[in-house]
Amino acid sequence: MPRISSKVDKDEHLVKVGAAIRARRKATGVSQEALADYAGVDRSHMGKIERGERNVTLLNLVRIAEAMDCKPSDVLSEAGL
Amino acid sequence: MPRISSKVDKDEHLVKVGAAIRARRKATGVSQEALADYAGVDRSHMGKIERGERNVTLLNLVRIAEAMDCKPSDVLSEAGL
Repeated sequence: MPRISSKVDKDEHLVKVGAAIRARRKATGVSQEALADYAGVDRSHMGKIERGERNVTLLNLVRIAEAMDCKPSDVLSEAGL
Repeated sequence: MPRISSKVDKDEHLVKVGAAIRARRKATGVSQEALADYAGVDRSHMGKIERGERNVTLLNLVRIAEAMDCKPSDVLSEAGL
């Protein structure tokens, strides 16, 4: 069960950011597990972040962006945020 | 006491984002309390976010940016992230 309801995230910001992370990760040919390990984020948590089921924190967004060799602001821009 | 130690946030990402929020808020002449109320963030929590003492979540960053009539990616860019 997602912890974030669509009522709380009505504009689907988390879904958009998760999709942007996934798109960039896939473009670089890295598995979700490898990205999670490299970023130091729990593998299960990374899956939930990519599906927009968790309210990702700034420090995790920074870690994920660094692991993908980009800036956190790039990820948000790509998510349209 | 800050909940986020400098060890966890060694590159001071949270401090940088908090400073960027504060700078933009001050440039628009809005008080911290007014911004907190407008964004729907607890006033005490907003102070801690501006001081980099809390690991701000994406949804709160979105709410704060919307309250300042800008994009979350703008805030991160201004923070150098």
